[in-house]
Amino acid sequence: MASQPNNVGILAMEIHFPPTRLVLEELEAHDEVSKGAYTTDPGQDCMGFVIEDEDVVSMSMTAVTYLLEKYAIDPNQIGRLDVGTETIIDKSKSIKTFLMRIFEEHGNTDIEGVDSHNSSYGGTAALFNCVNWVESSSWDGRYGLVVCTDSAVYAKGPARATGGAAAIAMLVGPDAPIVFEGKIRASYMSHVYDIYKPILDSEDPVVDGEISQTCYLKALDSCYKGLCNKYEKVEGEQFSIDNAAYFAFHSPYNKLVQKSFGRLLYNDFLRNASSIDESARQILAPFESLTGDESYQSRDLDEASQQVAKPFYDEKVEPTTLIPKQVGNMYTASLYAAFASLLHNKHDTLAGQRVIMFSYGGGSTATMFSLKLNEGQHPFSLLNIATVMNVAERLQKRYEYTPPEFDIFVGLYEARREFGIKNDYWCEMPGSILPPGAYYFRGVDSEYRRGYGKKTPEIEQEIEEIILE
Amino acid sequence: MASQPNNVGILAMEIHFPPTRLVLEELEAHDEVSKGAYTTDPGQDCMGFVIEDEDVVSMSMTAVTYLLEKYAIDPNQIGRLDVGTETIIDKSKSIKTFLMRIFEEHGNTDIEGVDSHNSSYGGTAALFNCVNWVESSSWDGRYGLVVCTDSAVYAKGPARATGGAAAIAMLVGPDAPIVFEGKIRASYMSHVYDIYKPILDSEDPVVDGEISQTCYLKALDSCYKGLCNKYEKVEGEQFSIDNAAYFAFHSPYNKLVQKSFGRLLYNDFLRNASSIDESARQILAPFESLTGDESYQSRDLDEASQQVAKPFYDEKVEPTTLIPKQVGNMYTASLYAAFASLLHNKHDTLAGQRVIMFSYGGGSTATMFSLKLNEGQHPFSLLNIATVMNVAERLQKRYEYTPPEFDIFVGLYEARREFGIKNDYWCEMPGSILPPGAYYFRGVDSEYRRGYGKKTPEIEQEIEEIILE
Repeated sequence: MASQPNNVGILAMEIHFPPTRLVLEELEAHDEVSKGAYTTDPGQDCMGFVIEDEDVVSMSMTAVTYLLEKYAIDPNQIGRLDVGTETIIDKSKSIKTFLMRIFEEHGNTDIEGVDSHNSSYGGTAALFNCVNWVESSSWDGRYGLVVCTDSAVYAKGPARATGGAAAIAMLVGPDAPIVFEGKIRASYMSHVYDIYKPILDSEDPVVDGEISQTCYLKALDSCYKGLCNKYEKVEGEQFSIDNAAYFAFHSPYNKLVQKSFGRLLYNDFLRNASSIDESARQILAPFESLTGDESYQSRDLDEASQQVAKPFYDEKVEPTTLIPKQVGNMYTASLYAAFASLLHNKHDTLAGQRVIMFSYGGGSTATMFSLKLNEGQHPFSLLNIATVMNVAERLQKRYEYTPPEFDIFVGLYEARREFGIKNDYWCEMPGSILPPGAYYFRGVDSEYRRGYGKKTPEIEQEIEEIILE
Repeated sequence: MASQPNNVGILAMEIHFPPTRLVLEELEAHDEVSKGAYTTDPGQDCMGFVIEDEDVVSMSMTAVTYLLEKYAIDPNQIGRLDVGTETIIDKSKSIKTFLMRIFEEHGNTDIEGVDSHNSSYGGTAALFNCVNWVESSSWDGRYGLVVCTDSAVYAKGPARATGGAAAIAMLVGPDAPIVFEGKIRASYMSHVYDIYKPILDSEDPVVDGEISQTCYLKALDSCYKGLCNKYEKVEGEQFSIDNAAYFAFHSPYNKLVQKSFGRLLYNDFLRNASSIDESARQILAPFESLTGDESYQSRDLDEASQQVAKPFYDEKVEPTTLIPKQVGNMYTASLYAAFASLLHNKHDTLAGQRVIMFSYGGGSTATMFSLKLNEGQHPFSLLNIATVMNVAERLQKRYEYTPPEFDIFVGLYEARREFGIKNDYWCEMPGSILPPGAYYFRGVDSEYRRGYGKKTPEIEQEIEEIILE
């Protein structure tokens, strides 16, 4: 019988994003939009995208197998597998069942968990569910595994520059270097139509631009207030941004993260928190009596709070922004890619620190929660997680595509969709640019069954021969 | 701070199925199929179906509000809400967010949980997630709420007779009359294409009839073996069907439930369990050395095990079959409708008993788990749950539709879908046959936003006037 688990949290992480890169500055020129429209304005640099031989299943299979291999985890040690995604490839069969292939080969079929769905929030729901399992009476002593996987594809137009794709796998168990502070957590869940996907055969969301950013910020405010209240109950003192070393946000585009952090400062100001000094007080004083609605509309407030927040942003948020700025909107993986960026940048100084995480999904669902970090023990140490994820090299090693090439790939993808050719198609050169050991998507047979393969040295060889032909 | 919870489980239940009824015998005649094709063969009597003014959201809103009202639960006492469904009406926005309307009105937006997806198994995943939350360190002392909601609609042909629809709401918390035995549980999860829904704009599944029943039975065998092993570890004695008073199954059609229970007896026979007497042993002896695959193909074995199982089936399974036989396949709600049937039939003799539950979803995911029952305390007592659900009266009070009327309703539904008129349509007479206080689906506006209403005495009056015009 398993003993009562303590310090339950994330033991290990692995990230996979497509080995593709599009420089958004080049896309601006190609699309003949104003300079900065895809870069300075949203605060983004590059985007990643899946080409024909990757999808949410293959990306998550890659992340999971890499994680198991690199941390030397026996697949039989996994007792639960939770997937978060908003990329629906089947209305019934979960992505979790595809991933069972990896475990069935080793004779392990006793693995609880399915897919958690609500827009970009599904990954956080999956993570909470997995952590709760370890803390429950039905825990059987094995590890939990969480996968966030999404591919964000938008119709031609300015939205297309806000795509992205990634899968992140996280191992969950007791005595973790990344511990959940379960009592310091607040949610804001509401029935709204900000971003939704009611057209089931299209990947494009319906977006109400007017309300979508406000919904995010309103949820942020409510979660922050709730978290502050709960912290004060647990710790007996007021919470302000001083009480956490870092803040990571769901990051559809970086500018929203900057706004959001400014908003936290504004909340601290309204609550008269100690973090706000005299000069900040003066800058924010004109906005003290705004109603909530007025405050979301006020550009002056937005600018003033970002100005006050700037030095804190550079210290507490900027280290979380690398991957989201380089890969784009990864939906469920976005927040955890921000956290992975932090581990990459700061793993050697994170022990003892608290990180506040803000997860958001349209519809809407949001939670702000607290993680407490410690060095951990190899292989489950902050240092090793950063080493395994190897973020800098992976970002750097991506193939750069020009905007016309990007158009071709997305065009191919859309043609398949628009002409209704959704079954009986096969990739031209599956696995071509993927790293060894990665899984690739082969295609879909006449019965709509999806095929996948693993890139072995033999396949590498075969592809090379095709290229050389 | 909440104290450590004990005996976590289901405190209260409520069920809502559409107030419609189609007698399958009449559909046989109408469809000119052989007598028994929709009744004796699958073991079904009637089916329920949604007409134009109900969908998975309205049904679940009805079940949730009825539950809160009838058990006098303040909506602010809910801290978590998990939904299980396989009826996807939006690829991003969860059904849980629709249900937030009920709680937002009361100022409660701090409610964790989203939708759990994998075919008919999603409800079980949602239930486990909710129970685990109560047992976790992040539990805040409030109740959890679980909703299973689905509407099964099939294309014209014999499959259409296997539809159904229902929503079931369950309140979760400590000191429950229906307690989860978390250590007596086993899952079987596998990557298979038995039943799946890859055509995103269609509600029809792709079914591989050859393998689908075998997948169910194979998962059943594996889960039962796992559960027996775990029981033996916990209790120190062999498990057989003698060790549980009742067995409830995911019930797409009753014949599969009969087969499944026979299969458990066959497993007991192979494991040489005490439940198998000499006469049963003789009947099953010819099948002792079959391989697994042979055993799934053998009609003789199927008949022999059902023959041996018959007296036990009548005692331990038959009381769970009422609603599934009368309403049809309710997908995620199916297993819990079987359990509700048991509470309806046997609530006064269930205290102290163990019920084994088998949940299955295509793709595939399956878990067998154990519930231990006690009388409970009003309002959270077995007696009160049975009283609230009021199953007999509700089944009896349904409006009977003739097969041609049924065709018209499903035809209307399909026309909307096939002609792509998925937005900007409104129901002719929303709420007409629904009971007071039920929610109805009004329609979809040009921006694909779904509208709902609650049937009040005023609306009842209005509808009556329209009818009388």
